[in-house]
Amino acid sequence: MCELLGMECNVRTDIVFSFSGLALRGGVKGPHADGWGLALYEDKAVRTFLEPAACGMSPLAKYVRENPIKTLLAIAHVRKRTRGLTSLANTHPFVRELWGRHFTFAHNGTVRGLRKKFKLGEYSPIGNTDSEYAFCLVMDFLRRKFRTYPRSSRELWNAVAEIGGKIGRTGTFNFLLGDGTHLFARCSTKLCYIIRRSPFRQATLADDDVTIDFSEVTTPNDRVAIIATTPLTRDETWTLGVPGNLWVFRGGLLRATLPSA
Amino acid sequence: MCELLGMECNVRTDIVFSFSGLALRGGVKGPHADGWGLALYEDKAVRTFLEPAACGMSPLAKYVRENPIKTLLAIAHVRKRTRGLTSLANTHPFVRELWGRHFTFAHNGTVRGLRKKFKLGEYSPIGNTDSEYAFCLVMDFLRRKFRTYPRSSRELWNAVAEIGGKIGRTGTFNFLLGDGTHLFARCSTKLCYIIRRSPFRQATLADDDVTIDFSEVTTPNDRVAIIATTPLTRDETWTLGVPGNLWVFRGGLLRATLPSA
Repeated sequence: MCELLGMECNVRTDIVFSFSGLALRGGVKGPHADGWGLALYEDKAVRTFLEPAACGMSPLAKYVRENPIKTLLAIAHVRKRTRGLTSLANTHPFVRELWGRHFTFAHNGTVRGLRKKFKLGEYSPIGNTDSEYAFCLVMDFLRRKFRTYPRSSRELWNAVAEIGGKIGRTGTFNFLLGDGTHLFARCSTKLCYIIRRSPFRQATLADDDVTIDFSEVTTPNDRVAIIATTPLTRDETWTLGVPGNLWVFRGGLLRATLPSA
Repeated sequence: MCELLGMECNVRTDIVFSFSGLALRGGVKGPHADGWGLALYEDKAVRTFLEPAACGMSPLAKYVRENPIKTLLAIAHVRKRTRGLTSLANTHPFVRELWGRHFTFAHNGTVRGLRKKFKLGEYSPIGNTDSEYAFCLVMDFLRRKFRTYPRSSRELWNAVAEIGGKIGRTGTFNFLLGDGTHLFARCSTKLCYIIRRSPFRQATLADDDVTIDFSEVTTPNDRVAIIATTPLTRDETWTLGVPGNLWVFRGGLLRATLPSA
């Protein structure tokens, strides 16, 4: 299994605290030693840091922690491979361009028989994971459905929920999908979120003794949504996802919870 | 103007020496202070390090120099913007997927009036540079011409030369294009290359006093092609490009020089 981490905010925020908690599960505290990736948006473009090696000991992960980049939208992943080799091509998050923006995708779980059930369209996987294949199907579905970025956000949300449900029926399909504006989070078996906002308190990483007092690093209007496979802190209240539901985050708020089964 | 750097080899090689020379031109010795990027292939997948800020002082560029990643194919770019804002979306190299592989593109020069002369197809720019627009046109052209990666390499080479020539007529179009197998280098006004092979000698960076003895870090079968805007070393013989020609490198060898005008 893999660990997912997403962050979506109304003010540019660095993901170091949460990423540190995730990194601990990547080869130090957890069994997720087959690669990691971090995608950070700047407007409609994303930059990724990818490494087909354990996150916990990685000098690149250390660099990312020590040189925080602020962003409104980030997706991270640490991988315990179930399918496919350990390689750069198989390292999440995956990125494709659609409608002049980067879409970014990370998956937890295994979906089966996709190649027989769904034909590829305009997008092709570079590696050989079920995850990247599924991402290509999601992108094809959206591309066929809308010629440009939909004016009605809700139409886009519904489309993501629809294709998420279709693919989700073939296995375990927890995923995070970012488009530069939204963070979509589908729960298949496990996913949880928290929205940190005023009054900010302190939080302690579940896997370490690191504590942060968010009131010292925020302003009263900040809203930061964090989505993760399992709660990353031990002294905050996380909302658990319902299997078959899709969350839509924008501006540090949960905008919708849609059926995606 | 911007500086281009490409490397294409028959054995996995790190690009640190040449990248160090390029980095010096990015805000320390040169005027190219508007961002830099480095793309490193692993098979058909690429990973990029992008920063919309000066390369010379960049901690990420320092990280890349201190933690060398070996690769068969790399493309780097430092940018002095002529068009478009300094932003992540406008930072070269640009990446798109085609036929299940990453294509990577960096441009030196300015091409004009593309939007009027050429309509976009399946690929859309994320930023607002003429460079990314031109790259989308290249990708559309290849996608329309071949349904899958061409079995005949020469057909692909000719196609790249053809679209390079078409776009090149609209301005200055020096570019590097990688597909995971080939490195294409089109000379519009200036570009040069060197192939380092046995017997290896020492080389000294043109912009610094750094010297490397390649015989200490290579084996007799190694071949490393380096392509750059201007010679990066002062004690080696670089071959200068002829305007309107396309070089094709594979396996550390120059495979073809094609007209692309």
